[in-house]
Amino acid sequence: MDPENLLPADLRQMIRAGQWQQPTSGACAGWVQANLVMLPKDYAFHFLLFCVRNPKPCPILDVLEPGVFSPNIASGADLRADLPKYRIYEYGEMKKEVSEVRDFFHDDTVSFLLGCSFSFERALLNAGVPVRNVEEGKNVSMYITNRPCASSGPFSCPLVVTMRPMTPSEAIRATQITTRFHLTHGAPVHLGDPTKIGIKDLSNPDFGDPVTVKKDEIPVFWACGVTSILAATSKQIPLVITHSPGHMFVSDLRDEDLTIL
Amino acid sequence: MDPENLLPADLRQMIRAGQWQQPTSGACAGWVQANLVMLPKDYAFHFLLFCVRNPKPCPILDVLEPGVFSPNIASGADLRADLPKYRIYEYGEMKKEVSEVRDFFHDDTVSFLLGCSFSFERALLNAGVPVRNVEEGKNVSMYITNRPCASSGPFSCPLVVTMRPMTPSEAIRATQITTRFHLTHGAPVHLGDPTKIGIKDLSNPDFGDPVTVKKDEIPVFWACGVTSILAATSKQIPLVITHSPGHMFVSDLRDEDLTIL
Repeated sequence: MDPENLLPADLRQMIRAGQWQQPTSGACAGWVQANLVMLPKDYAFHFLLFCVRNPKPCPILDVLEPGVFSPNIASGADLRADLPKYRIYEYGEMKKEVSEVRDFFHDDTVSFLLGCSFSFERALLNAGVPVRNVEEGKNVSMYITNRPCASSGPFSCPLVVTMRPMTPSEAIRATQITTRFHLTHGAPVHLGDPTKIGIKDLSNPDFGDPVTVKKDEIPVFWACGVTSILAATSKQIPLVITHSPGHMFVSDLRDEDLTIL
Repeated sequence: MDPENLLPADLRQMIRAGQWQQPTSGACAGWVQANLVMLPKDYAFHFLLFCVRNPKPCPILDVLEPGVFSPNIASGADLRADLPKYRIYEYGEMKKEVSEVRDFFHDDTVSFLLGCSFSFERALLNAGVPVRNVEEGKNVSMYITNRPCASSGPFSCPLVVTMRPMTPSEAIRATQITTRFHLTHGAPVHLGDPTKIGIKDLSNPDFGDPVTVKKDEIPVFWACGVTSILAATSKQIPLVITHSPGHMFVSDLRDEDLTIL
């Protein structure tokens, strides 16, 4: 079966059974995928407040009570086992990658699911706006900017952005389209001169791959969910669990459920 | 000076000096007014989560760290003294109304400022859509519905709505206009038959005043910030401070700052 046509519950079942270990991009077309952050209850108020204060990089899709691993946005799912790959951080340092986190999940663990840009990339493609990373089969280019996020308690980091090159008129159309998707990063945060947001070299992204920028194109920048990972992996937090890049949680929400208009 | 033309900082100064004790509706035209809820840190995560889970009735404008009373959205303001009237609740019971709350505000008090419908009422009037409560010089009609909010820890209550009567074509225009204001309750939650949301008698609102519904009009219902007060005044919380109805906090945000489009 074409992964694009899988239903979320079926993909989650395959992942839980160890039959799917690769990234989730391209799977379950039209269904919302999410970033995962899990951390101890003592830090949950300040991390939730960090997300509330920075809604563009950290749009909240679901937050679970301490010790709960079955999310509201996916029937019968288990956040401890339904993602293909996880990362375990201790005091801000990545310790290992694992395929399930039952041993790391405790009674006081609070789980956050945050929007990701896969939803609006499909909407851009449907509208004929180029998505270069998809065209070239690469990871999207990501950059750490010089713009600080609003901090909250121990959580404090610069804004991370993704970049997609397009013509100015495509940039205008892309702004309209992504405005609708305010829960998956919404409208761009910048376009044009990358140095204005502290990016020195477009061909050398901090995460992901570089992509081709054509002669008549400008770079267009969106807030990126990796910001939440940068914030969560603060040195002060004893244990943080996140998804591994590209290995997202696939929910039962449809992309259109997240639109404002 | 016409109260409509006052600047927020000036009105807050008058309130703090005891020179303004009446409701704030109609004051500082074009500036965002907010609902206030203050409660102990131990309940802050669950109350913040309640607001996140119920964004239409409880749109978050600002949340302050424990013990902080100077909000991010109003320069030099003091939330303990810059509202004309407050209510003090103990274990869910209203104990008194006071003009400042310095004696009730502690190191562990967390303050929440939530959007209110004054912002979109002005936008409706500017577009020629009738706002009957303003026309008739009354408080807006508010009703407790049969729709439960998503609960969070000790916070659990039905959705409260406001009602404004208008013609069907005005209701369509009002839906477009208020969609832009997603941080001040956004689009309506219901229109037409009130019994569908558990309202038996439009002429007998649970809060506020009844208004005239003309022959060719239908009732249009918006989520209401009073929902947050109903939730916050849970029997389990030893001390909760709120604004008194109509006596809001006036911020330095402009109404247009809160629009999505």
